[in-house]
Amino acid sequence: MENSYNECVKKSNDKDVSLQELRDRLAEFAEIRGWDQYHSPRNLLLALVGEVGELSEIFQWKGEVARGLPNWGSDDKEHLEEELSDVLLYLVRLADVCGLDLGRAALTKIVKNARKYPIGNKKSTT
Amino acid sequence: MENSYNECVKKSNDKDVSLQELRDRLAEFAEIRGWDQYHSPRNLLLALVGEVGELSEIFQWKGEVARGLPNWGSDDKEHLEEELSDVLLYLVRLADVCGLDLGRAALTKIVKNARKYPIGNKKSTT
Amino acid sequence: MENSYNECVKKSNDKDVSLQELRDRLAEFAEIRGWDQYHSPRNLLLALVGEVGELSEIFQWKGEVARGLPNWGSDDKEHLEEELSDVLLYLVRLADVCGLDLGRAALTKIVKNARKYPIGNKKSTT
Amino acid sequence: MENSYNECVKKSNDKDVSLQELRDRLAEFAEIRGWDQYHSPRNLLLALVGEVGELSEIFQWKGEVARGLPNWGSDDKEHLEEELSDVLLYLVRLADVCGLDLGRAALTKIVKNARKYPIGNKKSTT
Repeated sequence: MENSYNECVKKSNDKDVSLQELRDRLAEFAEIRGWDQYHSPRNLLLALVGEVGELSEIFQWKGEVARGLPNWGSDDKEHLEEELSDVLLYLVRLADVCGLDLGRAALTKIVKNARKYPIGNKKSTT
Repeated sequence: MENSYNECVKKSNDKDVSLQELRDRLAEFAEIRGWDQYHSPRNLLLALVGEVGELSEIFQWKGEVARGLPNWGSDDKEHLEEELSDVLLYLVRLADVCGLDLGRAALTKIVKNARKYPIGNKKSTT
Repeated sequence: MENSYNECVKKSNDKDVSLQELRDRLAEFAEIRGWDQYHSPRNLLLALVGEVGELSEIFQWKGEVARGLPNWGSDDKEHLEEELSDVLLYLVRLADVCGLDLGRAALTKIVKNARKYPIGNKKSTT
Repeated sequence: MENSYNECVKKSNDKDVSLQELRDRLAEFAEIRGWDQYHSPRNLLLALVGEVGELSEIFQWKGEVARGLPNWGSDDKEHLEEELSDVLLYLVRLADVCGLDLGRAALTKIVKNARKYPIGNKKSTT
């Protein structure tokens, strides 16, 4: 059930969005507004923490929440999409001003995790 | 200077990594290990907060940090890449188990931000 | 039940610990070790975020957790006490280096919250 | 200089506020409003993360900030006091619903840290 649900979501109307595209758009966004001066690594990190706080606020009084958010209205889902996006955008920007390639790093981390947790290991990780 | 530095980083050896690719790899990673049972939205959110904590620890005693991390060794940069990736991977996974399209949402948020902060506005904010 | 449980915990072996006592001990602790140079507001804030991350890691794969932690072993409870303490100690230290009186501020906030949420209001919020 | 500044702040008009007092006030506050049902450990933890986010937002675009906040206006300081308090109040409440004595735990942690970092050690800790 879960799988067919996920497949359905995946197959419908996805635009393939790359981390590089987001990085370039954000770099242009900041430069054109004169915001580069504010975008130091620690400023961006604290902005990221602020957005993680807003993301947490969405979930804070809800008790456990089922996968797929079956009882959420479209407004709540849209709000969640915005906060998830805010975290992502600051993360992409932070990696960029640090001169790091986040997409490549993420693929490398998945490979490393695959070695750390070989198939058959049923215990989840930090 | 900053720009030519960024251009240089961007043009060299980037693999274009999409959020959809990460999402699919992580979904398979979890399913094949029997981890779906642990991947509820709030579990993943708390795991994300844990990784943001590890990311913050890298920066915590450093005072202000210059863009491009000019004085950091390769080990420190690699450590930072790993923690940035951990945050990203849990974020992608959280969006997926919520049934949301993070890439599309992020592009939408950039457009919304562009309207909220028209060019000419020099003050940053959330 | 919940109340009598809480009363029991409260009446047994509490030492009354004040925020001022913690502040003074931490100030002495840092000074005597030459750590004042590291204890800038943003360094301490990021250290606090790091500890909140460690606190979250304790809860991340557990699903919902009952009040009183009925199924937790003493090691897990002790670990939790340590992480809660780490968050508290950095918070107290952060307020101190900012020159703010955290205890007085907290009492003021409770009074303000009491006005904001008059009795009879059943819905929680920040 | 730093010391005489701190001494001055400490000696003037401190009310000694204990963690037990805050705990009892918050417990009464929640009970009388029927909020105990919302105050599960993970709900409170996420509320705490939300407040840490608001605390971070205060510092996010400021670059490094000097001890004592010499250039901050009284409104900004009051805002900071409120966010520090919000983090503290959720932390105290979280410890309480977990049945843990936060004040005693914090003193124990200071003793443990004193052993871990004997005097003479000049390197700060995570």
